[in-house]
Amino acid sequence: MPSTPATQPTAQIGVTGLAVMGSNLARNFARHGHTVAVHNRTTARTTALIDEHGHEGNFVPAEIAEEFVAALQKPRRIVIMVKAGDPTDAVIDEFAPLLDEGDMIIDGGNAHFLDTRRREKKLRERGIHFVGTGISGGEEGALHGPSIMPGGSAESYEALGPLLESIAAKAPDGTPCCTHIGPDAAGHFVKMVHNGIEYADMQLIAEAYDLLRTVAGYEPARIAEVFRGWNTGRLDSYLIEITAEVLAHTDAATGRPFVDVVADAAEQKGTGRWTVQTALDLGVPVSGIGEAVFARSLSGSTGLRAAARGLPGPEGAALSGEEAEAFAARVEEALYASKVVSYAQGWNMISAAGAEYGWDIDLGGVAAIWRGGCIIRAAFLDRIRAAFAADPALPTLLADKGFAEEVGRAQDAWREVVATAVRHGVPTPGFSAALAYYDALRAERLPAALTQGQRDFFGAHTYRRTDREGSFHTLWGGDRSEERTA
Amino acid sequence: MPSTPATQPTAQIGVTGLAVMGSNLARNFARHGHTVAVHNRTTARTTALIDEHGHEGNFVPAEIAEEFVAALQKPRRIVIMVKAGDPTDAVIDEFAPLLDEGDMIIDGGNAHFLDTRRREKKLRERGIHFVGTGISGGEEGALHGPSIMPGGSAESYEALGPLLESIAAKAPDGTPCCTHIGPDAAGHFVKMVHNGIEYADMQLIAEAYDLLRTVAGYEPARIAEVFRGWNTGRLDSYLIEITAEVLAHTDAATGRPFVDVVADAAEQKGTGRWTVQTALDLGVPVSGIGEAVFARSLSGSTGLRAAARGLPGPEGAALSGEEAEAFAARVEEALYASKVVSYAQGWNMISAAGAEYGWDIDLGGVAAIWRGGCIIRAAFLDRIRAAFAADPALPTLLADKGFAEEVGRAQDAWREVVATAVRHGVPTPGFSAALAYYDALRAERLPAALTQGQRDFFGAHTYRRTDREGSFHTLWGGDRSEERTA
Repeated sequence: MPSTPATQPTAQIGVTGLAVMGSNLARNFARHGHTVAVHNRTTARTTALIDEHGHEGNFVPAEIAEEFVAALQKPRRIVIMVKAGDPTDAVIDEFAPLLDEGDMIIDGGNAHFLDTRRREKKLRERGIHFVGTGISGGEEGALHGPSIMPGGSAESYEALGPLLESIAAKAPDGTPCCTHIGPDAAGHFVKMVHNGIEYADMQLIAEAYDLLRTVAGYEPARIAEVFRGWNTGRLDSYLIEITAEVLAHTDAATGRPFVDVVADAAEQKGTGRWTVQTALDLGVPVSGIGEAVFARSLSGSTGLRAAARGLPGPEGAALSGEEAEAFAARVEEALYASKVVSYAQGWNMISAAGAEYGWDIDLGGVAAIWRGGCIIRAAFLDRIRAAFAADPALPTLLADKGFAEEVGRAQDAWREVVATAVRHGVPTPGFSAALAYYDALRAERLPAALTQGQRDFFGAHTYRRTDREGSFHTLWGGDRSEERTA
Repeated sequence: MPSTPATQPTAQIGVTGLAVMGSNLARNFARHGHTVAVHNRTTARTTALIDEHGHEGNFVPAEIAEEFVAALQKPRRIVIMVKAGDPTDAVIDEFAPLLDEGDMIIDGGNAHFLDTRRREKKLRERGIHFVGTGISGGEEGALHGPSIMPGGSAESYEALGPLLESIAAKAPDGTPCCTHIGPDAAGHFVKMVHNGIEYADMQLIAEAYDLLRTVAGYEPARIAEVFRGWNTGRLDSYLIEITAEVLAHTDAATGRPFVDVVADAAEQKGTGRWTVQTALDLGVPVSGIGEAVFARSLSGSTGLRAAARGLPGPEGAALSGEEAEAFAARVEEALYASKVVSYAQGWNMISAAGAEYGWDIDLGGVAAIWRGGCIIRAAFLDRIRAAFAADPALPTLLADKGFAEEVGRAQDAWREVVATAVRHGVPTPGFSAALAYYDALRAERLPAALTQGQRDFFGAHTYRRTDREGSFHTLWGGDRSEERTA
């Protein structure tokens, strides 16, 4: 490797862990005029980066940790881009002893937010800022402008924010897609929810595709056109855009639609699962994300599917002509309404975590930095930003006047689409869960009262009454009189 | 307290922790002719037990741990009935040093199965059997015959099984509702899934009630009659039975139906949540349980509901006369089919855990011991027992010939009920999720292929093909040719 021993602290930022994400992030910093110290456990990657991209800006390659740290201006800013879990702890343990008070370690990996809380607390005791940072946009985003979600102390953001903002994606209005989310693990938490919403979005799109294919009888190329059309309206988003690209693609080997030669078993890397598990701990219903994660698991359950394939279903012929077109238009409404519900659930979760952990998250700010750079970037997010700007304490997106009106207008079509799916035997767990959530949330009374009655019957768990304060128990095994227990 | 110092080891079993569950379990042992050592952290409970129920059998009260242990015949069998979590660890730490190799600690609380694994491993190293044991049936069950799910070593079951079987509920065919589930935490795992299924059952019943109330226009007293009728058929079960009791009950204070004066916010104690979180880790879709847990959370989300109440819904008049009766009959079919799906999901989870942890669980045996004593006891469970007896490797209950035929016959009604619910604005997340699961499982192709295409597009996550082995990536940003990556 080129021998440029870093005796002088010339770098504004350092990146250690130079796999594609780390390497691209380092290049992004360098391309924006920052001097970037780069380091990797094995030097081959560092050498490769300098050889291939050294001309893109000012890099200071370092072979060993001490050299890397010595290359950094104070307060030192070290971005670690290694695998979540033990490798992250190992890198922290390697660098922390070399740092001074006020220095910063920025974890740009997909850490579980509870790990980030633990690490932040431990490093804070030593005077080091630990900044768990969500970075979305994949490899391309890391190079050309990701959406960046830093947590950690407000003080650290003063020194770090300008650098991150300089390399972040820009929203359509020009503002950087990076903001200080909140203390300790707020950044990684919000990134996790981003991914959960992404799961839900993708499941809803898959269901819309399935309905257009099975009920409307459209071929993939035609469905690609439908998605292209949707992408010019309120559904305008990166995921809708690439759906059209994938559906329009023809497999070269077979000449068949690409989507027909891909195995129908969806994989996952864990952040969707984390989102649902965390929502359960917080007591926030995120049924849209839950159904999306389960749908992926189900698709990959080879043995189960082999055993159940061929179970009886309805015999419904596909629609045709104008009927099919009218149905396709209704699917857009169902997709949009279900999407609003998914996002409402995701934001409830962020809001609940903010209260639980004292993070004081600007809910509109989260929407603002997802307008660009990340996988769920969409015109729609500016609407969410505006909804929270108008009412920072909005309890649910569904209570925003604009969204409520749109969903209200869409509901007939939404109900029709779900009813049709059910009659045709097309699984729409995401659409159905979203609609059930909407109907439950707006209900005057829920049958949960019966559930409480049952719990009191078999477990003496008590219940509350609608007309009086206190907890009550009915003597179900006795004369069925009621006693007040608290 | 009565001074009966335990100098001689006369007791076959000991119970420490004498709140209602522990006290009732001790009485159950004594009533079955066993000599029972009893102990509690504070002696007042021990005294109360002896004063009130000492005449029911042979009790040996002990004030201190050493006395309690000295009262037990070898191998010693100590049942701990204290709160899950730290209190359980504290009691283990207190007693373990007093025990000899081959002695047994039986944890009858609702421990998380991962805690049980940890404790079993630690005590095994000291030669002590730790038997995490699920006990279902509530306070009444503990006294009159619970369903008992012991884990731990096969060796421990030889010495313990006969005692537990003597106090367990009896299935209709006379066999005890207790069997050795499998090693280490298998018992607590299975108890957790029992509770998860219980959540799903209760949610489905709540939805059936809501539909009969809202769509069929029935009053609670009439719905109680409908449930009484169902309880004479294939839905015959404890939960259906008590649903009728709760719905038939009139509130004395107001003269109104009891279910109308109970606050419609369902509470939960955590095992449903654990079930879903664990299923997510195992990659098993348990959407029915998931929706049930979320429905409880939603019902208690006061702020959200206040904000969303009054959002627009459909204006559907209730049915009447024969139409209502026909609808009620269809609700029975939908409830039954959804229930089969819930149980299928629960058994998949037990099967997956058995494989993951090497527990070798007899799937039919689990059904057999839930036929009596526990909250979900039902005639139906004998059908599940028989299905696994006929095919111990059955991949899903839905593939059992009998269940498949029943669900196949029910599906028209099931689809009609869900479509009607959706049109009337009645939330049926449980029915809908179950039907979507059924339709996804039987599908020839799922839209998960599109999901994989999207993942490859934005994250180069690769995909598999239907026609060739290997992993593939399409150069979406380039000429869209395909490369094989593995």
